[in-house]
Amino acid sequence: MEENERLVYLNRKDYKIIENKDYFCSGIDAILLSNFAKVSKKNKVLDIGTGSGIIPILMEAKYDLNFLVAFEIQEKIANMAKRSVSLNALENKITIINDDISNYLKYYPNGFFDVITSNPPYMSNSGYENEIIEKRLARHEITLDIFSLASIATKALKYGGKIFLIHKPDRLVDIFYALRENNIEPKKITLVSSFKNKKPSIVLIEGIKGGKPSLLVTENLIIYDENGNYTKELQDIYYN
Amino acid sequence: MEENERLVYLNRKDYKIIENKDYFCSGIDAILLSNFAKVSKKNKVLDIGTGSGIIPILMEAKYDLNFLVAFEIQEKIANMAKRSVSLNALENKITIINDDISNYLKYYPNGFFDVITSNPPYMSNSGYENEIIEKRLARHEITLDIFSLASIATKALKYGGKIFLIHKPDRLVDIFYALRENNIEPKKITLVSSFKNKKPSIVLIEGIKGGKPSLLVTENLIIYDENGNYTKELQDIYYN
Repeated sequence: MEENERLVYLNRKDYKIIENKDYFCSGIDAILLSNFAKVSKKNKVLDIGTGSGIIPILMEAKYDLNFLVAFEIQEKIANMAKRSVSLNALENKITIINDDISNYLKYYPNGFFDVITSNPPYMSNSGYENEIIEKRLARHEITLDIFSLASIATKALKYGGKIFLIHKPDRLVDIFYALRENNIEPKKITLVSSFKNKKPSIVLIEGIKGGKPSLLVTENLIIYDENGNYTKELQDIYYN
Repeated sequence: MEENERLVYLNRKDYKIIENKDYFCSGIDAILLSNFAKVSKKNKVLDIGTGSGIIPILMEAKYDLNFLVAFEIQEKIANMAKRSVSLNALENKITIINDDISNYLKYYPNGFFDVITSNPPYMSNSGYENEIIEKRLARHEITLDIFSLASIATKALKYGGKIFLIHKPDRLVDIFYALRENNIEPKKITLVSSFKNKKPSIVLIEGIKGGKPSLLVTENLIIYDENGNYTKELQDIYYN
């Protein structure tokens, strides 16, 4: 463990993950995304901008996957993710690649993956003056905007393959537009609110490469009840 | 009153409207849309595919507008709408035009309207074999699909003008895509569910011509409480 790092225990298969409090910590996002992303055991899964590696590790825990690849552009963070993979003895299942996802074709051919997951940078390119570089790149669309993400995703996905994203509702038009422009049809969204009477602050999106237009908008998901405890739905997601 | 017609009393300004039970009756949609569509008294407002004319009549009732134009392609229905306008003595404020909205430029110039409202046909072009022609055209995208609607809307709207639509959530990607392709940015949506734990069945959409990308997804609206009565929010909308 290095300076400012801490171990976070996940509620699945006794896995743990290394996080650095100076970097971006994805917290509940990764839990929500790994629950939303329904995949089958034989799927080859690519995570784009993996950060601490929490998404592929949770995905393996939940779906017993055997082939996960995760790109992370930042060297320090990619190294941390690699150490988390080792810590859980998942080296034979999860490969962390420290490179820009725009170099995807150096590593895998077109149409290679069944599923893509991503918790991409949420924020536009302003207001990050006080952040350290690692946090900047993880939170702002500097190296990975939603349009680039969609154009790489459609290369990496096989026809009929799925992408699962977690993002901010205010970007929903950009996301739908970018996906459809790249032949990935948004098929399902779940909006997530912190409390019952609050507007949603998170959206989960499923797209299918070559899918037919028709969007399922599910019932919203609420994180906390009026006492500030996890709702029953969230407990189900968290502990199952 | 003609055969199969009935008078429906609106809860505003003692207005009433003629509906024909053989045709499409917009019911709560028009109430929701006229509440969602915030406009100011001086706005020139265009309603596309007005049916019974309920939307412009409710809009006048709520916002004291002086200049409303409503297109309806079907002659019988346009005539019924004209009779409803007369019944409420609104001829000097509401003009019903019996024509295809694609002939818009025969009547008004580009950029003439501040606001557009529309409750367009929801359904794709199948499964209408048992419907009479008036209902078919009102419910299915035969004469007016969402892409045509958006391309006419952007002609009719001034820069900065607004469109307010009510539609089905499964068409949200098409709607966002069609609006943005026509330089109308979706700025706000409200999803509407019949009951608290049901997925939304209606979506209200606000777009602004030339608007900057950023979507507000509001808290959902719920129509009925567990006893099947209108929720408090709905009562507020219905009676105010």
